[in-house]
Amino acid sequence: MQKKIFLNEDEIPRQWYNIAADLPGTINPPLGPDGKPISPEMLAPVFPMNLIEQEVSTERWIDIPDGILDMLCRWRPSPLHRAIYLEKALKTPAKIFYKDESVSPAGSHKPNTAVAQAWYNKEFGIKRLTTETGAGQWGSALSYACALLGLECKVFMVKVSFEQKPFRKVLMQTWGGNCVASPSNETIVGREILKQTPDTPGSLGIAISEAIEQAVGDESGQTRYALGSVLNHVMLHQTIIGLEAKKQLAKAGIKKVDTVIGCAGGGSNFAGLAFPFTHDKINGADIEIIPVEPASCPTLTATPFSYDHGDVAQMTPMLPMHSLGHKYIPAPIHAGGLRYHGMAPLVSHAVEAGLMTPMAIQQLECYEAAMTFARTEGLLVAPETSHAIAATIRKALEAKETGEEKTIIFNLSGHGLMDLNGYAKYMAGDLHNISMSEKEIEESRKISMGGNPVPKI
Amino acid sequence: MQKKIFLNEDEIPRQWYNIAADLPGTINPPLGPDGKPISPEMLAPVFPMNLIEQEVSTERWIDIPDGILDMLCRWRPSPLHRAIYLEKALKTPAKIFYKDESVSPAGSHKPNTAVAQAWYNKEFGIKRLTTETGAGQWGSALSYACALLGLECKVFMVKVSFEQKPFRKVLMQTWGGNCVASPSNETIVGREILKQTPDTPGSLGIAISEAIEQAVGDESGQTRYALGSVLNHVMLHQTIIGLEAKKQLAKAGIKKVDTVIGCAGGGSNFAGLAFPFTHDKINGADIEIIPVEPASCPTLTATPFSYDHGDVAQMTPMLPMHSLGHKYIPAPIHAGGLRYHGMAPLVSHAVEAGLMTPMAIQQLECYEAAMTFARTEGLLVAPETSHAIAATIRKALEAKETGEEKTIIFNLSGHGLMDLNGYAKYMAGDLHNISMSEKEIEESRKISMGGNPVPKI
Repeated sequence: MQKKIFLNEDEIPRQWYNIAADLPGTINPPLGPDGKPISPEMLAPVFPMNLIEQEVSTERWIDIPDGILDMLCRWRPSPLHRAIYLEKALKTPAKIFYKDESVSPAGSHKPNTAVAQAWYNKEFGIKRLTTETGAGQWGSALSYACALLGLECKVFMVKVSFEQKPFRKVLMQTWGGNCVASPSNETIVGREILKQTPDTPGSLGIAISEAIEQAVGDESGQTRYALGSVLNHVMLHQTIIGLEAKKQLAKAGIKKVDTVIGCAGGGSNFAGLAFPFTHDKINGADIEIIPVEPASCPTLTATPFSYDHGDVAQMTPMLPMHSLGHKYIPAPIHAGGLRYHGMAPLVSHAVEAGLMTPMAIQQLECYEAAMTFARTEGLLVAPETSHAIAATIRKALEAKETGEEKTIIFNLSGHGLMDLNGYAKYMAGDLHNISMSEKEIEESRKISMGGNPVPKI
Repeated sequence: MQKKIFLNEDEIPRQWYNIAADLPGTINPPLGPDGKPISPEMLAPVFPMNLIEQEVSTERWIDIPDGILDMLCRWRPSPLHRAIYLEKALKTPAKIFYKDESVSPAGSHKPNTAVAQAWYNKEFGIKRLTTETGAGQWGSALSYACALLGLECKVFMVKVSFEQKPFRKVLMQTWGGNCVASPSNETIVGREILKQTPDTPGSLGIAISEAIEQAVGDESGQTRYALGSVLNHVMLHQTIIGLEAKKQLAKAGIKKVDTVIGCAGGGSNFAGLAFPFTHDKINGADIEIIPVEPASCPTLTATPFSYDHGDVAQMTPMLPMHSLGHKYIPAPIHAGGLRYHGMAPLVSHAVEAGLMTPMAIQQLECYEAAMTFARTEGLLVAPETSHAIAATIRKALEAKETGEEKTIIFNLSGHGLMDLNGYAKYMAGDLHNISMSEKEIEESRKISMGGNPVPKI
């Protein structure tokens, strides 16, 4: 039986899919400090205008420039696999497929948007990009993209990760990226925080503040900031995943997909696979679409849709999203990419519209699923991806109960070869489940929102 | 321009190529302690008879069993890439291709033979395999293969690597492999060495001795030993690399290959790519075939073809090979897979027959080449593979001098995502070149051979 379905380079999709064109209801704009919608011009010091135009676009299909296609074709189209060994182990009648985004040089889906963002910035005359990174996946991807295009890349990496994961920094450096621990002495906000709390482990919120400060503060106007998830244009660039997957499923003779699954932190790998299928659902197809989040950071499953900041320091506009509150520091689970208080506005909107059914899963079930996957399919996945596999196994076992030959597809967002510490702890029995109680969720949101009721849209 | 050339699963080669059928002159047999040829029966406690038959076979083409093809198709056929960005950076008229063996779940070419060896052992009724591993690539590959087939796997990992590279052990454990530091308390030889030198860092020679002792000592007869390089059947299994590459080059419209390059430690990834092209050379094709070794371990470029042991403790038969002497401990360069005193008998024979032109390169040139590759082609390669890239760049620059549009292909034997420490040291300026003088080579061989003249074949 055929286990891998490839597309040729000339079969790569030549347009991205913009779900903003199809979502029911009005797309809520980001709001400024005055509570009024942000205009594109207000974002101009932070992002190049061509990306801002994409951010607010409601065109359904957006052409992928040849220069970006050329870079994507270094590793794309990515393979679609039929997980026949996992199916056998589960004794399920379900057909399980996975889209393997771990084949990119940086090892995850992140380069899909990194090369696009770098290309648009270069087109706009920008010479240097700044960004933040937590566990290091996004910093690696942007360093890689900048190496291909000859741009400078500055990465502020959360200090605790910078120290715990030295090899992520080396990977960025190999691609020419300049990675520093955040908070750093290179920014006003960094110096201020170091003065007050010299021993701080740092946070994504601080790192975002430093990266934005350096971009906005470059008087030559040649520096901009790049974000690896959450924003509309990031979701857009990732849709190539789902668009390829649909072509590949058709090649494999699959007429109907029943379930689409992805892990969701900021939302971009999930949206990348799911939005093209959501398009079909909006047009009447019967598809279950499941974003999977950790029980320790249950953004979609436990919070209302409301306006909140993207960062701790409130430097970003207010975004319409499911959020645990911008001050919330998620528990230190190994799936660093899922430790985010908010969720992409477009994903949040789709969930609110009833198009998706989010699921939260505990980390022990996720690691167990990843172990099963490694010993059947062979690939060692990132801790983030293990959440998608755990949900897939749940759905495959449901199909076994009912005897239905369902077709399930999930996104294998990244490999775990640089995250083996988590596997080691799991096998040693040193990990435990972590979940938030309803009371903790309420408290977290109260603190973030200053005790005020959450603004309803 | 097309950058990746794929084959479909149904285009995978269905036979391995056995160069023993075509090499000029007589294939020299391994010799026992009495100086007489080893019989297949004498190897039976160590290897299953079906693999011993392959080891001594002189059939040109050997069918790949369906059960092995099925496992290989989990990641094979592997992609062939055209390195157009490296070509541009070098401004060379040469066409550069690379066969990407890093796409296997274990990240290198090693699983090609691991799944074959595990399958033949299982066919023969074996339940458990033992092996040694240095840096950990082979131990990972065999653990993976055993996971797929439900065999037990025991890996003796050189103690210094066991401690320095804990994540390789975790990778093996994730696949169910049982990895212990060598010397261990589990064998007679291990206990003896620990009693004499409790602080020994271990060596590949000791680890081999422990693995063989456990295999031979299992009275149930259900345990055998597996080796990841050097032996004829290992070279055979790896020829799928070159056989696929030839089909892919034909698909890309390439009529003539001028240069074939691979790094060579024990010789298996090099032989895998090179032997099918050597077959053409034996039949009159004009091809330059280059095994590349580190200047610190110049087996092929500096030593005569002679009989020597495969391990320090002289537990293996004497093999006809280029060797620095079985007591030689190579310098601790980062390319751990190239730190071996000998070279596969079939590769040694081919070099002796004038079919190949070996090259030795210093580690700084290799790391520089790997950095150039990472910033042009994007992939971060293993330190071993960097030797093949350094040689490729030399040949591409020669072509630039002469203006010849040569076609060069090299084997990208593995990725470097678990070897970033070497890159970090290189970028920090902490690495230096290491080479052996003629006198050191002579001394090393004298010590190994007990001061006797090297036996000529």
